[in-house]
Amino acid sequence: MLGLRDILAARRTISNLVKRTPLEYSFLLSRRTGCQVYLKLENRQVTGSFKPRGAVNKIASLSAGEKARGLVTASAGNHALGVAHAARALGGVSSTIFLPHNAPRSKVEKLREFGSELRFAGSSYEEAHHAAEEFVQTQGATYVHAYDDPVIIAGQGTVGLEIMEDLPDVEAIVVPVGGGGLSAGIAVAAKTINPEVKVIGVQPEASPAAYLSFKEGRCYESYEAEPTIADGLAGGYGIVPFTIAKDLIDEIVVVSEEAIWEAVYVLLELNQLVVEGAGAAAIALLLAGPASGGLAQQSLGSLRGIPSTSLSPQAHGYETGLDLKGKKVVAVLSGGNIDADLLFRIMEARMSRSSGASF
Amino acid sequence: MLGLRDILAARRTISNLVKRTPLEYSFLLSRRTGCQVYLKLENRQVTGSFKPRGAVNKIASLSAGEKARGLVTASAGNHALGVAHAARALGGVSSTIFLPHNAPRSKVEKLREFGSELRFAGSSYEEAHHAAEEFVQTQGATYVHAYDDPVIIAGQGTVGLEIMEDLPDVEAIVVPVGGGGLSAGIAVAAKTINPEVKVIGVQPEASPAAYLSFKEGRCYESYEAEPTIADGLAGGYGIVPFTIAKDLIDEIVVVSEEAIWEAVYVLLELNQLVVEGAGAAAIALLLAGPASGGLAQQSLGSLRGIPSTSLSPQAHGYETGLDLKGKKVVAVLSGGNIDADLLFRIMEARMSRSSGASF
Repeated sequence: MLGLRDILAARRTISNLVKRTPLEYSFLLSRRTGCQVYLKLENRQVTGSFKPRGAVNKIASLSAGEKARGLVTASAGNHALGVAHAARALGGVSSTIFLPHNAPRSKVEKLREFGSELRFAGSSYEEAHHAAEEFVQTQGATYVHAYDDPVIIAGQGTVGLEIMEDLPDVEAIVVPVGGGGLSAGIAVAAKTINPEVKVIGVQPEASPAAYLSFKEGRCYESYEAEPTIADGLAGGYGIVPFTIAKDLIDEIVVVSEEAIWEAVYVLLELNQLVVEGAGAAAIALLLAGPASGGLAQQSLGSLRGIPSTSLSPQAHGYETGLDLKGKKVVAVLSGGNIDADLLFRIMEARMSRSSGASF
Repeated sequence: MLGLRDILAARRTISNLVKRTPLEYSFLLSRRTGCQVYLKLENRQVTGSFKPRGAVNKIASLSAGEKARGLVTASAGNHALGVAHAARALGGVSSTIFLPHNAPRSKVEKLREFGSELRFAGSSYEEAHHAAEEFVQTQGATYVHAYDDPVIIAGQGTVGLEIMEDLPDVEAIVVPVGGGGLSAGIAVAAKTINPEVKVIGVQPEASPAAYLSFKEGRCYESYEAEPTIADGLAGGYGIVPFTIAKDLIDEIVVVSEEAIWEAVYVLLELNQLVVEGAGAAAIALLLAGPASGGLAQQSLGSLRGIPSTSLSPQAHGYETGLDLKGKKVVAVLSGGNIDADLLFRIMEARMSRSSGASF
């Protein structure tokens, strides 16, 4: 369905329209977590997330006729930005984007840069998606799915390619999982190049569709998420990513909302990086590691090769499931589009809480 | 004293130990300011500021004997980080760093990464500098000046080289000025490559030593600054930068403390960039430009080729002095090491103020 060859081809297709993002070693996060932490800065990608990698690859693959009918998509924000960027960069293809009413302002504001038509529908990604599908039926436009498409996933996989090139001896890659396109693409690239690399997915407790899909062996294609600051990870897991990744991803771990808040704060404080909730999920996981001093966080379970204790919902602390101590670990910071007022609330919550034992 | 050849040589010396930082076009800042704004992201340089460029160039130029005696320097933080990084990267040269007691915590914390010896002395850069000089007298160590040294300035000039390569048709470069090393180096690189490029220095109202030096034709080598969030720009202007830059820098403009606060906030909100006060000074200037809608900010004056109205301290609004409307302008974001609690206070101040007309 998807191989390294497709990802290499995607890179040739997209290389002029997306960035090769930096992979930065973080001394302070390494000291804090007990592993050797490298940050893959997709928050500094064009449009502020990894999404244009897949969108450019997809839209470049369309026929003249498909493009002439116009594009349509649904997105909580980052995929919309990817499509809008790609549509403009590939010669001004017209596009209509359906967004939930509660899409983050920072994402909506950036969208106005591109000249796509914006339509607001529903209060979740899935409701916007249904409205977009209806639009396709009535208008005959070409739908660009956010994750359930191997051509999109091949584009996202270029993140994995860059990681393997920049840090050939990486031992684990921790990646946030929502619809699953990014994690599936990275898993194909990383595992093909080196089957020893662990690929660990992270989901918010508020929306554990992929976690449940792996645990139960059936795909939760839709999921009614609880509120979460990781808006980009809320909703169902894609059947295409599930099919591609189910034998490649080593483990899916669930992190609490509180742990994600903490991770956003820590990345700001230690690394001067602005990262949205979804983008901080990998760090939420690592902060519960061996050197964490016990940040409360649920590692609800895992998939295989893990002691059964960690499969219990009562298990606290990531270290019960995996030993990343001292290992070279890449955390994929998938996006940076967080509203300033949410960032402010996160800082406020952290600063009003105790303090003292900061760094 | 310093030519393009020295800067090209510096680049060869430092290229493996510092980053070539991105130059990013900002659509939202362009719309907000009325010029075409490109951001030179020295806040994402190793150590979080441009300083290692000069420090690596300098320390690599020292003799074995000079290095064996150990290095000493004084710094508000960023130069210290540059020296510490260079000393370690160039084979573990021992170094002692004098810092004022009020050096930002984010800078001090990062310094602990490198194994330099830290000594706290006085409450300003200049007091720390005196303590360091005393240390040189008694211990015989090799002093590495933060800016008053052509070898340091050649290293900082590599920023200008990268700008001219990445945006050959740049029309103006706006750069913060403290001791003056960065602006002098950039001016040499830019003006040698294209004498038409305008180089505009920015200083905080709280510490206008370079502004006064240009205005009066004599160098304010020390200056007792008022409190400013642009801690990296506080203090005197170097005689070496003054000598090099006095016929190259087109104008020095002073911005208010309030304008710097606003610029830090705007970079966070629109660009998801964490920038320290000094690093935001160039944006403080541009935000007062033609499309600003009149952000209160003093353009106290300028040097030459500018209508005399703008030389009056009463002149408000940048557009009276220079016309950057529609021009390709690079803003150098010189550093990103801001404490989370200061950033929080800046956000708090902005959010409690009116609001509404945000983006």
